[in-house]
Amino acid sequence: MDLLFLGTSAGVPTKKRNVTGLALIEETGSDWFLVDCGEATQHRLLRTRLSLHDLQAIFITHVHGDHCYGLPGLLASAGMSGRKKPLTIIAPAGIAEWFKATQQFTQLYLPFEVDFLPTEALDTWSFAHWAVDAIPLSHRVPSFGYRFTETAREPYLNTEKLTADGISRGPIWGQLRKGIDAFHDGQTLKSSDYVHYPHPARCVVVCGDNDQPELLRTFCQPAQVLVHESTYTQEVADKAGDTFGHSSAALIATFAQSIALPNLLLTHFSARYQANPEQSPSIEDIRSEAAHYYQGPLFLAEDLARYRLAKTGDLSLVTS
Amino acid sequence: MDLLFLGTSAGVPTKKRNVTGLALIEETGSDWFLVDCGEATQHRLLRTRLSLHDLQAIFITHVHGDHCYGLPGLLASAGMSGRKKPLTIIAPAGIAEWFKATQQFTQLYLPFEVDFLPTEALDTWSFAHWAVDAIPLSHRVPSFGYRFTETAREPYLNTEKLTADGISRGPIWGQLRKGIDAFHDGQTLKSSDYVHYPHPARCVVVCGDNDQPELLRTFCQPAQVLVHESTYTQEVADKAGDTFGHSSAALIATFAQSIALPNLLLTHFSARYQANPEQSPSIEDIRSEAAHYYQGPLFLAEDLARYRLAKTGDLSLVTS
Repeated sequence: MDLLFLGTSAGVPTKKRNVTGLALIEETGSDWFLVDCGEATQHRLLRTRLSLHDLQAIFITHVHGDHCYGLPGLLASAGMSGRKKPLTIIAPAGIAEWFKATQQFTQLYLPFEVDFLPTEALDTWSFAHWAVDAIPLSHRVPSFGYRFTETAREPYLNTEKLTADGISRGPIWGQLRKGIDAFHDGQTLKSSDYVHYPHPARCVVVCGDNDQPELLRTFCQPAQVLVHESTYTQEVADKAGDTFGHSSAALIATFAQSIALPNLLLTHFSARYQANPEQSPSIEDIRSEAAHYYQGPLFLAEDLARYRLAKTGDLSLVTS
Repeated sequence: MDLLFLGTSAGVPTKKRNVTGLALIEETGSDWFLVDCGEATQHRLLRTRLSLHDLQAIFITHVHGDHCYGLPGLLASAGMSGRKKPLTIIAPAGIAEWFKATQQFTQLYLPFEVDFLPTEALDTWSFAHWAVDAIPLSHRVPSFGYRFTETAREPYLNTEKLTADGISRGPIWGQLRKGIDAFHDGQTLKSSDYVHYPHPARCVVVCGDNDQPELLRTFCQPAQVLVHESTYTQEVADKAGDTFGHSSAALIATFAQSIALPNLLLTHFSARYQANPEQSPSIEDIRSEAAHYYQGPLFLAEDLARYRLAKTGDLSLVTS
């Protein structure tokens, strides 16, 4: 599972950072999910190898424009490029209504079906290799986090034990490997005695805007990676006297440390933070504040940076 | 008056070209008008010196997304950057309804007033130095062209004639210069006898999508510049067997030649046309087809290219 950031800016785009969008790419390198779709997400996609034909589903965290205004254009372009495959969009209810109004008033006809499912249902949505569920967060409007949990893991079949137990290579091996118990020589062979998974299921939590990381304590328990906003440093938030429903670097880092989170991936930075560390304030202010409170592997997302979550649960920057 | 293109692609963005947007910039270099606002128009603006605080009005030609999906994000960013000044948007009625729905469903609050005026009224809208009127075109949805006519021209006062007529320098000169008749030595002095305008009023026509240039024959009569779509070459249009309501290079160029248009500025090119003339089909195919039918000064717009309409009526590319 790769995480490719299409936008890492809060509220407004900057010359270097677009507003929010994140592609989660399957092992194959083609099938992918999109979480949030700020304006010009489709423009960022032109600089990747991802195709709108391979997009499996879109998840929207909340109705604010910097997380959804790219949706009509992206879907229109998918249509113009000939997509026919239905597309699932999991989003707060307002998004479906807004999209319907957009279709009506701008005479947008799509050659594929769009199935809107309300995030508020808090279902578990199943895809080929991943299950996704959601959690309500705290922001100025209803905002959600999405948890992607791997369901199709590679099993390890203990062939030494099978051989030692006198079960020779054959269809039974395949059956056990698939998790199905088998009957052999008058005995029931339990799949779980011969199969195990060398690594826990991969699990990534991607959150919308949120000023109460504490809400994620249980939800993040199985996660190897948390992608969370870090709009300001605490100093800036204190000076403004209002967080506008956002988290500071200190707040989210303190939470991550308290749950011993394996990897913290910060994004959604206020436009005031310069990419150039020689200018002030810079994105390095966010990094140093977060690093002060969180001792685990810390990543600050950049537009078009791609991170890989290995089967081992390790997260690393992919350098091409 | 400068014309700065923010997008020159039809339908979908490409790596080099954004969807439609055009800034018309006043002599001062700061006050400006926007015609059409495709997705990521605000991103293009980050690469110019134009400020959303100096934007005088927005004109939308028609409701298709590649001409308007950038509107909510651009207005949201204007609000976040502290704009308080009301903004006039002249647009087909569907745009106002769509924007209202967008505000409602995405909880967008602006700290300034937006006054929507329907293009369908075909009024003349007056601004400090320009009057703007509109004309209905022919497309799959109602589409319009806007004509910008200079109203605040620099008058030339014939001081030689004034001196010869025994009227010496004084307040009367200023009065006549302003176009007001004056009383002097028992005689009425007509301003028009002493004042003239060395050049005709500048006039630019900017059109939305349109497959019948002929509709513009009278409207374009005073124009020095026509900005018009040229989505395909005729060969491509013929192959497709459907123009989808668009003009070919041959069609618009033939029309421009027939009215002896002073300057033809083409834009809104299908994504298939490559910027690199060594690839095929390239934008040069459009250029050579248009040049075959139109012998006047021909310009093919590029993203972020800036053209200047001089007081003389000459159009030229501004090289910085």
